[in-house]
Amino acid sequence: MKTKPIILKLGGSVITHKEKPLTINNGAIRRLAYEISQANVSPLVIVHGGGSFGHPIAKAYRINEGFKDSSQMMGFSKTHQAMTKLNAMVLDALISHNIPAVAVQPSSFIITKSDRIKTIDNKVVKKLIETGFVPVLYGDAVLDSDKGFAILSGDQLVSSLATQLAAECIIVGVDVDGLYTSDPKKDKTAKLIQHITLQELKKIQHEVKEATATVTDVTGGMLGKISELIPAVEAGISVLIVNALKPDNVYKTLKGQEVVGTLIE
Amino acid sequence: MKTKPIILKLGGSVITHKEKPLTINNGAIRRLAYEISQANVSPLVIVHGGGSFGHPIAKAYRINEGFKDSSQMMGFSKTHQAMTKLNAMVLDALISHNIPAVAVQPSSFIITKSDRIKTIDNKVVKKLIETGFVPVLYGDAVLDSDKGFAILSGDQLVSSLATQLAAECIIVGVDVDGLYTSDPKKDKTAKLIQHITLQELKKIQHEVKEATATVTDVTGGMLGKISELIPAVEAGISVLIVNALKPDNVYKTLKGQEVVGTLIE
Repeated sequence: MKTKPIILKLGGSVITHKEKPLTINNGAIRRLAYEISQANVSPLVIVHGGGSFGHPIAKAYRINEGFKDSSQMMGFSKTHQAMTKLNAMVLDALISHNIPAVAVQPSSFIITKSDRIKTIDNKVVKKLIETGFVPVLYGDAVLDSDKGFAILSGDQLVSSLATQLAAECIIVGVDVDGLYTSDPKKDKTAKLIQHITLQELKKIQHEVKEATATVTDVTGGMLGKISELIPAVEAGISVLIVNALKPDNVYKTLKGQEVVGTLIE
Repeated sequence: MKTKPIILKLGGSVITHKEKPLTINNGAIRRLAYEISQANVSPLVIVHGGGSFGHPIAKAYRINEGFKDSSQMMGFSKTHQAMTKLNAMVLDALISHNIPAVAVQPSSFIITKSDRIKTIDNKVVKKLIETGFVPVLYGDAVLDSDKGFAILSGDQLVSSLATQLAAECIIVGVDVDGLYTSDPKKDKTAKLIQHITLQELKKIQHEVKEATATVTDVTGGMLGKISELIPAVEAGISVLIVNALKPDNVYKTLKGQEVVGTLIE
């Protein structure tokens, strides 16, 4: 590979309306496709989340608990199908903006072990990048060698791909400005953490872990997402969290311009 | 694996309207999903063709010639995307008939070499079968280690899967009754060959090859399709060609009942 790829994560809360099952945020997807085409960076790998496509079905059939009874089988099929459809809509937007995007279905080549990716054979993703394509992967319902099946989150996939492809950086597009001191959707005094080191992050993570017996993640769930990315940060890959619902943020971040957000390094 | 899987191929001419670009034969797909659910055979692997989804785009961008110039890149993206969408429609029909079908994207784990599958890592397909799912694969635009990219036909995929999974048999659903002595769509005197041995098939194939300098495949293209399946027949797997546009044919064939068609063994 000539240069290191940028890994762009598009959160499920950005590309779908999280509260409405199976509803995409068409405006956001089209705008993001336009921003990505204008930024025109290469090599680029895109990973998107499930939002209101994957999560409600997966939850209803308890896919994350693994294969416990045959009534879950149709749930696995339906979760997988919902993600394939969401992915097709993302691909439609990217292709219509002349981005040579190619869908790569995680469940076709990844089998997890107790929810975790052990090894990935990245030959297709690598060759797509080398050829000049933009591989597009996503959180997916996958087979699991211990549990029968599992949910592979887009965040775990991003971390694994970034490490194995020795990524330049990871850009995480979410529906808030970054990591806050408390949940910005509930607490108006919440302060954005614009820069955080791995050491500081681990300290907060530890404090939250200590507290989870009584309270939920004070950051509004962002810390949990970030935790998946720690292995990549440990491998020297910086992570930028930006609000992808705000126009131009993803464009500017791809171009290396300054954007309000959280930088982890 | 407990028992040997049946591989069911659904031709592009059956599930799409071949003359109208990007048009599915919704009635046929829904009826076939119903027949497959009623037959309720297990293990089962389904492979479908591209019909009017994959072929027109692949042809326009000369994807089968390999990567020659960058103008073909969007063509590869679009061909792949068209196949993903057709596959999603097939999956919708299967899932709505309560078949635990799971899409497996060939291009995510197969890289051909000069148009041919060299090795496939079938671990996902095998594990899906073992878990009780019905894997659904399809002809796809794939990366090629020699040509950059290539078109992997559903027929080549069927032959490869059947051999590697030691299939019980291959059922090929097409838009004619089977292999004829001449093209049944043009020649009213064409006779259906109801039974043919591997030796006889190779003899006809040789004669057609000798003649192709001046005439086209007299059987109306069926012989070309069958040729891809010869390796599977050589491995002892029988092939049944039936008209999948005629109601009950696929159901009866799956149940082992007699149907008008061509048996190769």
